[in-house]
Amino acid sequence: MPAVVVPISTPTRTADPACEAAVWEQIVDPVRPFLDRVSYQLVAQVEAFEPEIVEYARYALDNRGKQLRSALIALASGAVGRVTEELVTVAVIIEMIHLATLVHDDVMDGALLRRRRSTLAARWGNEVSVLLGDCLFAHALKLAAGFSTTEVCRAVADATGIVCGGEILQTHRRGRWNLTRAEYFRVLAMKTAELFALACELGAKLGGGTVEQQRALRRYGLALGTAYQIYDDCLDVFGAEGEAGKSLGTDLANGKPTLPVLIYLENAGLEERSELIGWLENWHPELLAGVRDRLERAGVLVGSAEVIREFLSEAVAAVEGLPATPSRSALNQFSEFLSQRITSLGV
Amino acid sequence: MPAVVVPISTPTRTADPACEAAVWEQIVDPVRPFLDRVSYQLVAQVEAFEPEIVEYARYALDNRGKQLRSALIALASGAVGRVTEELVTVAVIIEMIHLATLVHDDVMDGALLRRRRSTLAARWGNEVSVLLGDCLFAHALKLAAGFSTTEVCRAVADATGIVCGGEILQTHRRGRWNLTRAEYFRVLAMKTAELFALACELGAKLGGGTVEQQRALRRYGLALGTAYQIYDDCLDVFGAEGEAGKSLGTDLANGKPTLPVLIYLENAGLEERSELIGWLENWHPELLAGVRDRLERAGVLVGSAEVIREFLSEAVAAVEGLPATPSRSALNQFSEFLSQRITSLGV
Repeated sequence: MPAVVVPISTPTRTADPACEAAVWEQIVDPVRPFLDRVSYQLVAQVEAFEPEIVEYARYALDNRGKQLRSALIALASGAVGRVTEELVTVAVIIEMIHLATLVHDDVMDGALLRRRRSTLAARWGNEVSVLLGDCLFAHALKLAAGFSTTEVCRAVADATGIVCGGEILQTHRRGRWNLTRAEYFRVLAMKTAELFALACELGAKLGGGTVEQQRALRRYGLALGTAYQIYDDCLDVFGAEGEAGKSLGTDLANGKPTLPVLIYLENAGLEERSELIGWLENWHPELLAGVRDRLERAGVLVGSAEVIREFLSEAVAAVEGLPATPSRSALNQFSEFLSQRITSLGV
Repeated sequence: MPAVVVPISTPTRTADPACEAAVWEQIVDPVRPFLDRVSYQLVAQVEAFEPEIVEYARYALDNRGKQLRSALIALASGAVGRVTEELVTVAVIIEMIHLATLVHDDVMDGALLRRRRSTLAARWGNEVSVLLGDCLFAHALKLAAGFSTTEVCRAVADATGIVCGGEILQTHRRGRWNLTRAEYFRVLAMKTAELFALACELGAKLGGGTVEQQRALRRYGLALGTAYQIYDDCLDVFGAEGEAGKSLGTDLANGKPTLPVLIYLENAGLEERSELIGWLENWHPELLAGVRDRLERAGVLVGSAEVIREFLSEAVAAVEGLPATPSRSALNQFSEFLSQRITSLGV
């Protein structure tokens, strides 16, 4: 059958956040009822926690972004079969694992702000945050153990280990400015793309897809998730304050080598290299504007956008063989949306 | 059949650590091969981790104490049926969950020493420790998902949530010197006794015990675990430096109301109360000797030992109806051992 591939080479610029949000809403419109059920069920989980813990749990579980992983579950299952009620539970589980990792991330980064709100750590301290993250992990796995077979539990536990392992690798790579792109991509695949892949794979599996379709959608999720994290890493340097919902320059401040920096260092002369590294190793926030300028003039944003589009092409190629359904189109639009967002950076 | 209950009211004093260790070895002698297999399998799990993470994982998994929870699994299963190979895996899972909570505890307490070694946090920092704890939780749940049904996974996830929830409650109770004993016991049941109970219950279940036997052994584990934690809390005040393997007075320094303090405050006059609370709220380590003296003179150690023995009697009573096997005798000796240890404090 002919594949309906949305072209990803001619993005329209949507620098206007309101417009972006509208485009996003359009993509997820068909799965909006699913996402709403997930939101509802996610917050309803607070009932399972001790009365003294409910306030923290509600705060953590209410802190939702675009529900990307839930949308992927609905679209992946829709692309190969049907969206069943138990997939709502799978989405709740994966969102909860994701939120647990964010709670722990914010402890480790000392972050004060996330999605325009105080972080749990800023509000109630590190101790409560470490423990609440643990409670969320445990509760997600308990939900996973509610399925009739152990496969959801195993897949979720496996992915959780990979995500946290990826974050350990990331801490190891701090200050390693000679990191290769392959090493960088590997961390992204583990710490971010793994949950996207899990969402797609479980969506396909429980939606009734063949093993081949599950694999194809897993590949889609891995590639899309990697592109998404590179975009997020670019946002840290090139985003507009306010739009990102968190402080910019956090990765630079923490010594994380991200793609924009790696591309710059790959192409810079010896003197420029040591100058940038010198700044990064003695970071203060006032340096951000200058570094951003220098990176942009060196064409780093264009280079990063190219890499992102390569991953997005890989994602689109992975699902080319699936039936041409509205869900598959939406998966392509998902990729297209991300492609547009990277274009809107730095304008 | 007649119950062979080891008397717990006439403890012999075993203040000598070497003698204590010998008594302990004698109790676990019948399950020593099981414990050795657990140790081996636990460390062998490092193979499942990323090469870059293996060193941390090995350090955390090598840090074993008396393997109390593993011993309980072997004894509980032996008391109602037989010790199967899959119980080794259950023991590995429960020890790993326990070690993960210790790794996170040490981050939160800022502890430098645990079982006479540097803590993971002291050695590699909080970030690696938070993430490694998460990896251990995830890996334990993955092992739990390896069973043919979801019941192990559900039980382990459930217990993990209760343990971490108990620790949140504990942080809430910090500085609450008017805590009731019931509130204090509840935290201990959640944060410590729950894993003892899980070990006993799963041991009984997978060992082939009836539902009634599983419940009886769960009650044994809850009571024994609570007694054990009270003993540990007494050790923090009355232990000999070196014997505890960690710094003494940590609970006092952290404002944790533990049984010795609660008993003192219950009986103290107004002036003594405010004096002690004043010290606790402006703690410095030099106060320890004086506080210890004052508490001991007030008979707190005797009062604590009484409470511990009540819980131990409850434990012994819970398994009274089980067949009189060597395993049940060992469960009674387990309780007796703890009763002797509390007696050896403060001598």
